[in-house]
Amino acid sequence: MPKKIAVVLAGCGRMDGSEVHESTLSLLYLAQGGALYHCFAPNDPQVAVIDNLTGKVSEGATRNQMVEAARIARGKIQPLADLEPSEFDGLVVPGGSGGFKNLSVGPGNVHPQLRRVVEGFYNAGKPMAFICIAPVLAARVLGVQGVELTIGNDAETAAEIERTGAHHIVARVNECVADETLKVVSTPAYMLGPGIADIAAGIQSCIKKLLSWA
Amino acid sequence: MPKKIAVVLAGCGRMDGSEVHESTLSLLYLAQGGALYHCFAPNDPQVAVIDNLTGKVSEGATRNQMVEAARIARGKIQPLADLEPSEFDGLVVPGGSGGFKNLSVGPGNVHPQLRRVVEGFYNAGKPMAFICIAPVLAARVLGVQGVELTIGNDAETAAEIERTGAHHIVARVNECVADETLKVVSTPAYMLGPGIADIAAGIQSCIKKLLSWA
Repeated sequence: MPKKIAVVLAGCGRMDGSEVHESTLSLLYLAQGGALYHCFAPNDPQVAVIDNLTGKVSEGATRNQMVEAARIARGKIQPLADLEPSEFDGLVVPGGSGGFKNLSVGPGNVHPQLRRVVEGFYNAGKPMAFICIAPVLAARVLGVQGVELTIGNDAETAAEIERTGAHHIVARVNECVADETLKVVSTPAYMLGPGIADIAAGIQSCIKKLLSWA
Repeated sequence: MPKKIAVVLAGCGRMDGSEVHESTLSLLYLAQGGALYHCFAPNDPQVAVIDNLTGKVSEGATRNQMVEAARIARGKIQPLADLEPSEFDGLVVPGGSGGFKNLSVGPGNVHPQLRRVVEGFYNAGKPMAFICIAPVLAARVLGVQGVELTIGNDAETAAEIERTGAHHIVARVNECVADETLKVVSTPAYMLGPGIADIAAGIQSCIKKLLSWA
């Protein structure tokens, strides 16, 4: 039986949604690893709509996180509220500052549906992968467990992770950090960059680790 | 010196823009092949705005092809009108039915800026790669040269290609068809599918061939 992995997206495009390369490469390496993936996203408006060319906020515009993430998922996506950890063998959360904000629902917070899901996978002893800035979300839920995570080497973000009780491990872009006890793996991706080939190597190792536990 | 490859996008998301996986994997294999890529898109409104979850047209909504394609290009994108074939060693055009419509500007047509670019690369003897449905655009410009192309095995689309004077070659998703004389390579990608690992194999072989000529 192929492993079933849930992937949580939140919009499409790094400034106001999930980072496109990180999301797509997660799906690629899951499929190449023989897993079936299924995408989920909050059925909520994005925190903002941002022109990904100029960086300007489109005042008054609204876009739905799930509808936009369907561009990455090729239409096969369900509301995050419908994600049942019991039906999956593992979880992947790609990055992107916009997706991070959508999944945070305010500074220091975690979207209640994502918190429920992460706690569900953790309680079931099922593995999870967090990419780029998404490990901060993992820290906010699992910091109390002392989870080991990486976002690369950004001091401020590492400090935010450490404040939750989680441990931050410096890593290079082509590496992942694996917490073997909690079955949580992370990789810096575009927190470090610089290019798609660099982040692909890290995401590939991250997904390989996830599937080895699944 | 690394090879410089121009990638032409037209929106973000297969229904009303460039297909996200095909576009991202083109960038991946270009970078892994040691090339530098630069993205371009028409600085024009999309032909339509379509909900990629439901397939419904968002009546009255407008989105700019270049601004949306910036989600794939991570903000590094220029107007297609600024693409000078003399500055690049090769060209890649990913697919997606929406991107195809944006780059067609009407049934049977080719966006004048894309026509200029394809003719420029052809006249300079520089290689080009067309993915998924994009080979139909190549046929509309280079059919008179008898270019060999594939879109997989869809009879109606193959017939449209043949009507231009181009030759359609049936191919599998993990294969590419290379016209060694005209230096044009194509692969069926999501014209066949079924999954991202399948199309990745074809796109990888397609980009490898392109770079071997560049």
